[in-house]
Amino acid sequence: PEKLWGKVVDVAEKIKKLGEEDPRRIIHSLKVGLATTLVSFFYYIRPLYDGFGTNSIWAVLTVILVCEFSVGATLGKGLNRMLATLSAGALGIGVHFLATMSGETGQPIILGLFVFLIAATVTFARFIPAMKARYDYGLMIFILTFSMISLSSYRESDQVLDMAHERVTTIIIGSFTAIVICICICPVWIGENLNNLVANNMEKLGKSLEGFRVEYFNRPEERPSMDDKSFLQGYKSVLTSKDTEEAMVARWEVWHFRFGFRHPWKQYLKIGTLSRQCAYKVDALNSYLNTKSQTPSEFQSKIQEPCTKICSESGKALKELAVGLRKVMNQPTLVNLHIQHSKMAAENLKSLLNTTSVWKNDNLQEIIPTGAVALILVDIVPNDNLRLFTS
Amino acid sequence: PEKLWGKVVDVAEKIKKLGEEDPRRIIHSLKVGLATTLVSFFYYIRPLYDGFGTNSIWAVLTVILVCEFSVGATLGKGLNRMLATLSAGALGIGVHFLATMSGETGQPIILGLFVFLIAATVTFARFIPAMKARYDYGLMIFILTFSMISLSSYRESDQVLDMAHERVTTIIIGSFTAIVICICICPVWIGENLNNLVANNMEKLGKSLEGFRVEYFNRPEERPSMDDKSFLQGYKSVLTSKDTEEAMVARWEVWHFRFGFRHPWKQYLKIGTLSRQCAYKVDALNSYLNTKSQTPSEFQSKIQEPCTKICSESGKALKELAVGLRKVMNQPTLVNLHIQHSKMAAENLKSLLNTTSVWKNDNLQEIIPTGAVALILVDIVPNDNLRLFTS
Repeated sequence: PEKLWGKVVDVAEKIKKLGEEDPRRIIHSLKVGLATTLVSFFYYIRPLYDGFGTNSIWAVLTVILVCEFSVGATLGKGLNRMLATLSAGALGIGVHFLATMSGETGQPIILGLFVFLIAATVTFARFIPAMKARYDYGLMIFILTFSMISLSSYRESDQVLDMAHERVTTIIIGSFTAIVICICICPVWIGENLNNLVANNMEKLGKSLEGFRVEYFNRPEERPSMDDKSFLQGYKSVLTSKDTEEAMVARWEVWHFRFGFRHPWKQYLKIGTLSRQCAYKVDALNSYLNTKSQTPSEFQSKIQEPCTKICSESGKALKELAVGLRKVMNQPTLVNLHIQHSKMAAENLKSLLNTTSVWKNDNLQEIIPTGAVALILVDIVPNDNLRLFTS
Repeated sequence: PEKLWGKVVDVAEKIKKLGEEDPRRIIHSLKVGLATTLVSFFYYIRPLYDGFGTNSIWAVLTVILVCEFSVGATLGKGLNRMLATLSAGALGIGVHFLATMSGETGQPIILGLFVFLIAATVTFARFIPAMKARYDYGLMIFILTFSMISLSSYRESDQVLDMAHERVTTIIIGSFTAIVICICICPVWIGENLNNLVANNMEKLGKSLEGFRVEYFNRPEERPSMDDKSFLQGYKSVLTSKDTEEAMVARWEVWHFRFGFRHPWKQYLKIGTLSRQCAYKVDALNSYLNTKSQTPSEFQSKIQEPCTKICSESGKALKELAVGLRKVMNQPTLVNLHIQHSKMAAENLKSLLNTTSVWKNDNLQEIIPTGAVALILVDIVPNDNLRLFTS
């Protein structure tokens, strides 16, 4: 029993941490609860229930299904659900009238044929990438509503118009309830999340670059004594951020308080790609941490100054950019300064590599890895990641 | 009108291509159509309809919602849906009896409170990573079913047991129909897809390595004249394959004809990680393609032989591994041979780099990039990617 209690405490602590990490999660849960309770009044209030009857349940189900964490996702699901229900309802009624015209034996055959055809073709349409990205949920609801209306019409053909009408109305009410609550109470804009993700990634890259400088170029005694070298590894999450970023491009959040109707989604994806390219280079740099000799060679001490300058100035520029991205889109002036500094350092480094005298006393085994580090650093500097902002 | 016709033809061709690329998509669409038609018989056949009435629709909706492309996803959704409906139905009935005991005014308050609490807590539970991975769909269905049963019970309290019973039965029938059709007609095992993805990625890495050899070490006149250098870029899709692979780990496909109940999902993820690490190195190699001087330096021609050997032997080993992974899990013997060869070449290259005489006539600018390429190649050879299989 003590073991069990320990486990319960463990789980409870994890859940608490989950809420503390991002309190918006708790707010979202309460929002879903509130929205569900709101549409429950269809049941509690007699006149409302008399209007919609058992179809009231669709409003409740819609709220639960449509309420998503971010405004973008909620809008997408709500609009998809409304559009699909409307169009599928209309088609279902059309097929119902077609089927009733073909007599008692013809009716189930026509209905069955249409249900099969619609289910198969719309399922196939979900494989089309352009449809999948925007309308996947809507296509599924289209099949659902069509089957529902046309099949029900077979057994209760006098009520089919009422039923279709009530389903459409309840679903519109449910979708609007979900959307209004999602937008009005502490909204989570996915555009903001994307902005923060991209900014965090740039900051991580900057920290990793500075961390690399300390690890590679400083003597052991000069390094701050830290057991935790996680800042060095920060870039690793940037390596695999592609899918997360692409999933965050919220096609349905058409308006943004910062950008109005012209949210630069594609620019964010571009910055993401460039950040990843930068992360690959940082990964290449870090692989040289192992080959590093304990005492710096003559060659290394000669190129040390421009190299450390590139690391720290580029790192600062990246961090400044991240800060700028978080606050306002205006480009902070310090970034240009840091970029200028690192460009100068890179020129410096290049000319050092061109003078042969620097390496005459060293052996190849030490020169090549150090030189490779220098080359990668030169390559990092005129990075388009930075250019995108300065232009 | 001609423009429109051109567009229609364009779209039609894209759709045709989509089907030709993977004919399983067409089969899946027909399967969904068939499953939907099958459960429609609840409506067409009088005795069946008399049994379930309007609740028959839940069987139809379940089939449409549960039928997924792969067996793993279908099983996951079907089991989630059945479990969640059962447990939420039971809880809903319990709350119904609790509410009826508290009188006419107390009933809606108790119901509202429970609906709010369940909706909020279960929504929060969806944020717990372990729950999200396996039970996300089930948690949503839990809220749905609970709200449905407990709210309906308020208005039709005499029918609540019948309703809960019918909902559970129809959903079980629908889930089983979907699962049986998904498994019995041309099943798509997600484990197979994962296997193919991992094998394809290894093959791409192998091709990219060999492509690099041709581009970097061969003279322009020796290279095959190809405009299409896509084989060089093949590794790029490996860089970002993490999320795809993780999404494919089908926790619900418990049995596999090759592995029985012990499918090595984690091993696949490990190979995936190692492939990505290898891809980062190939990316680092490819960045040196630009710095390459037109005429090979003396240093380059001296280290050329072991370098090309490493490229081609490692590439062959990767391709052999991919072939082996596709056919049977037994390790093809040729792989060991190729790994032996590339290890020997790597030793060779290392000792060449240790002899200082190889570079005395060249300048630093040419030595460093070539040397860096050599170092990365040495680093690629004892790759764990390969070791995983040989051990």
